[in-house]
Amino acid sequence: MITIVAKQTVKADKIADFLSTAKQLVEETKRSDAGCISYDLYQDSENPGVFAFIEEWEDSAVLDKHIASKHFTELFPQLGQFLDVQTEIVRYQKVN
Amino acid sequence: MITIVAKQTVKADKIADFLSTAKQLVEETKRSDAGCISYDLYQDSENPGVFAFIEEWEDSAVLDKHIASKHFTELFPQLGQFLDVQTEIVRYQKVN
Repeated sequence: MITIVAKQTVKADKIADFLSTAKQLVEETKRSDAGCISYDLYQDSENPGVFAFIEEWEDSAVLDKHIASKHFTELFPQLGQFLDVQTEIVRYQKVN
Repeated sequence: MITIVAKQTVKADKIADFLSTAKQLVEETKRSDAGCISYDLYQDSENPGVFAFIEEWEDSAVLDKHIASKHFTELFPQLGQFLDVQTEIVRYQKVN
């Protein structure tokens, strides 16, 4: 299993725009992507401009398919215009 | 529900020591802490010195109890000696 934490820091006046596109990406991914165990959007409770997609994938093959999907290649780049800081993506494996 | 991502960057020669104590913390938490939905340790697939505890808690009351528990107050500070960078803790709430 692969766990992704993709942290995004959004411009203060672009949070609503970011949320609209990010939620669409979550919906499309949950609807379409086989091998997706979970894919959710989270907001920092103390810093409302900080978000993270936390994602669980069965393996790297299904994650590669997600990254190549129409919804990801269309929607994920659109999020860039709303960000203050470049997305920080970490690919984790469970160790315990 | 509260989701915590606590990212820790460990000194290259201290990874085994870090893992030993961190796994003990995971075990004790899973065994003892009511209201803990999940609590797991993850390693960055590309940077073996980067770890994260990813945790899900029912609410802030049970999280506060965890932070006040004997195992947390004993074991979590011990991890500090193995770190290269101060722990980055983000408290998230799901938005989708």
